[in-house]
Amino acid sequence: MNKSLLKSRRQFLQGTALSSVFLGFSLPVQAQPVSEELQQTLPDSMLKAGSNFSNYGQPSIYEKDIIRWISANPNVPGNGVSWTPLEELQGTITPNGLHYERHHNGVPDINPSSHEIMIDGLVDKPLTFSIDALKRYPQIRKICFIECGGNSNAGWRSAPIQSAAGYVHGLVSNAEWTGVPLRLLLNECGIQAEAKWAIAEAADGAALNVSLPIEKLLDDAILALYQNGERLRPENGYPVRLLLPGWEGIVNVKWLRQLKLVEQPAMTRDETAQYTDLLPTGKARQFSFTMQAKSLITSPSVGMTLPDNPGIYQVTGLAWSGNGKIRKVEVSADGGDTWVQAELSDPVLDKAFTRFSLPWQWQGQYAILQSRATDETGYQQPSRNTLISERGDNSFFHYNAIVSWEINEDGQISHIYV
Amino acid sequence: MNKSLLKSRRQFLQGTALSSVFLGFSLPVQAQPVSEELQQTLPDSMLKAGSNFSNYGQPSIYEKDIIRWISANPNVPGNGVSWTPLEELQGTITPNGLHYERHHNGVPDINPSSHEIMIDGLVDKPLTFSIDALKRYPQIRKICFIECGGNSNAGWRSAPIQSAAGYVHGLVSNAEWTGVPLRLLLNECGIQAEAKWAIAEAADGAALNVSLPIEKLLDDAILALYQNGERLRPENGYPVRLLLPGWEGIVNVKWLRQLKLVEQPAMTRDETAQYTDLLPTGKARQFSFTMQAKSLITSPSVGMTLPDNPGIYQVTGLAWSGNGKIRKVEVSADGGDTWVQAELSDPVLDKAFTRFSLPWQWQGQYAILQSRATDETGYQQPSRNTLISERGDNSFFHYNAIVSWEINEDGQISHIYV
Repeated sequence: MNKSLLKSRRQFLQGTALSSVFLGFSLPVQAQPVSEELQQTLPDSMLKAGSNFSNYGQPSIYEKDIIRWISANPNVPGNGVSWTPLEELQGTITPNGLHYERHHNGVPDINPSSHEIMIDGLVDKPLTFSIDALKRYPQIRKICFIECGGNSNAGWRSAPIQSAAGYVHGLVSNAEWTGVPLRLLLNECGIQAEAKWAIAEAADGAALNVSLPIEKLLDDAILALYQNGERLRPENGYPVRLLLPGWEGIVNVKWLRQLKLVEQPAMTRDETAQYTDLLPTGKARQFSFTMQAKSLITSPSVGMTLPDNPGIYQVTGLAWSGNGKIRKVEVSADGGDTWVQAELSDPVLDKAFTRFSLPWQWQGQYAILQSRATDETGYQQPSRNTLISERGDNSFFHYNAIVSWEINEDGQISHIYV
Repeated sequence: MNKSLLKSRRQFLQGTALSSVFLGFSLPVQAQPVSEELQQTLPDSMLKAGSNFSNYGQPSIYEKDIIRWISANPNVPGNGVSWTPLEELQGTITPNGLHYERHHNGVPDINPSSHEIMIDGLVDKPLTFSIDALKRYPQIRKICFIECGGNSNAGWRSAPIQSAAGYVHGLVSNAEWTGVPLRLLLNECGIQAEAKWAIAEAADGAALNVSLPIEKLLDDAILALYQNGERLRPENGYPVRLLLPGWEGIVNVKWLRQLKLVEQPAMTRDETAQYTDLLPTGKARQFSFTMQAKSLITSPSVGMTLPDNPGIYQVTGLAWSGNGKIRKVEVSADGGDTWVQAELSDPVLDKAFTRFSLPWQWQGQYAILQSRATDETGYQQPSRNTLISERGDNSFFHYNAIVSWEINEDGQISHIYV
């Protein structure tokens, strides 16, 4: 942070009462008087018939730039991610076309009529389940987020990255998933007493597999068949994926083909070489499944410039926690010295995106906007310094620190560390 | 209903206790033993890399037949509907590509950068609001259904139609809508004491306009900008639509361009010649805005055939009410003689799709499946006979009677009136 901005910040803090910066009510902004010309002119769209009905709708051509950004490894086919443009979205549901992707070897082409899920290993009766068979079971739905364990990993870098919010934090999305409670199928197979883990394998080219504790699978795991009402998208696991609410993305195994019940975890590549973090003690965090509480101001955010007509701005963003519901989100405009509680949009759901917002008075002053989530267990999203003091600087996964947006007197917004 | 089926029905009623037909628990069904061959064979999808990341995802090619069916008037460009395939969906959210359409003159092409909403008439300050201006206001979200007033109108015909459930009842969809509370803008304009109604006009070729009571606009009306997280789809009102939760589709004016505050309704074409129903008294129901409680079993439903391996089937469907939350949904397998309460999927939301389900034991017996919704006001979905006794047979709109699916001994399902 340069000196002139620091000075501005001090002036701001000294001169402005908090209550006049965050407003508990909204003020009129931005409306224009109606001209006679406007009242007497019909827009072109009223002078002709519009376009036809469609069998499956698509976004407006005027929104063609609202896309998932792709970051792919050129050396491994289909290895990489695509990011949800969080800063362009509103509400809490991620539309299926924009749900983030993480593949290790691309999106497999799987004909649902020949796909089966096999449950074997330490069970009394090894069984297979076709997709048609799964549809005969009771289905439940769960609105929840899925977040890649590597989301926000740019935060571990020594300098703040200036990419758009979704291009850093958008490996998380939120959808309504519907499918069969896994416990029904496990119980049908008969779980043997020694079975403590299950190795879940995907039917993709990477043969992705991970070890999962049986307790979670018997608790709230779902074999998801539907995503926001329709059948899963191919890139989200069609024809069936595992859903483990609140747990890191990779264990929500897409294109699921097998669950093998075992005594011990298999120590696969993706739970040893990957998805673990080296701690300052020399030990590695492993099987760190739960995604901890996190929040992000999506608007205004890095790369945006506040319009040149100052006044009220709605600060809004998303909070989520793999531990349960979000209890509160606080927002600061002074880099964390003072905090104001934001409004949470009802209904606040378990392990789901929670939209927060509050009006903010911007009159051209320097500011550092931050948000801080607390979940129902009392866990509070840490500052970056706290996170690094606990986890060291050899980590890549599970970054959930408070994010800081610096706004200068021209309304330009940068990502900073404070 | 033919005699042999009636006889079957009597036999069924006499011979079977209700508790053995509707089960409060689930039973294993349809699993197959694991073969050694299956354990040792890798599917083709694991033998090669999959396809690439995409900027905006699409449904699986194996789901290409899951579409909106189009019923358009060949004599008027863009006049008609397309239907949501309710029987193919699960959960409660309708994905944006499958949200039903109703247009009077097609989908207008509106550039958001030049679109404005004008509020004039009996206000102190007539004002216009650009899309950018609207984005500066506080936004709220609402998960709710929108239902065309003409949905299910085939129910008024003298003989039961045999089209798929969504092709008769699918002019209703459910989404998360986000936008600006209209009351903020109306208050900014200053509502004059004589203003009791507003005439809302769309910027489409039909210049669709309707009169709306000011109380609703000040209550829960939203100028919706986002639909399931992303900007509205063109066919759903891009760049901005009016959302009046629980009220018939037409008053949720798409492509909104003007609200003119007035003393009396304008008696436009779509609130006189259309969207009214002639009652037996000779009077017409007019301004019958609220969509009353309704439910529909989506699976199993007409046109489906139950598989030839009898056992447990999940009866599931949707219920909704413009009055508020659904309190209960009851299901009958004997044409309404006896009822069992279905399970409602949490969270049950105000004026939103509510998913109900219960397991059903089918062993090849004749059955008539029905569902009956009751909302939190105590309003109960009527039988077809009750609806017609109250409303006569000159109606076209607001059909919400109980729907009956007849299942014969071969598992074939037909739509019947009982």
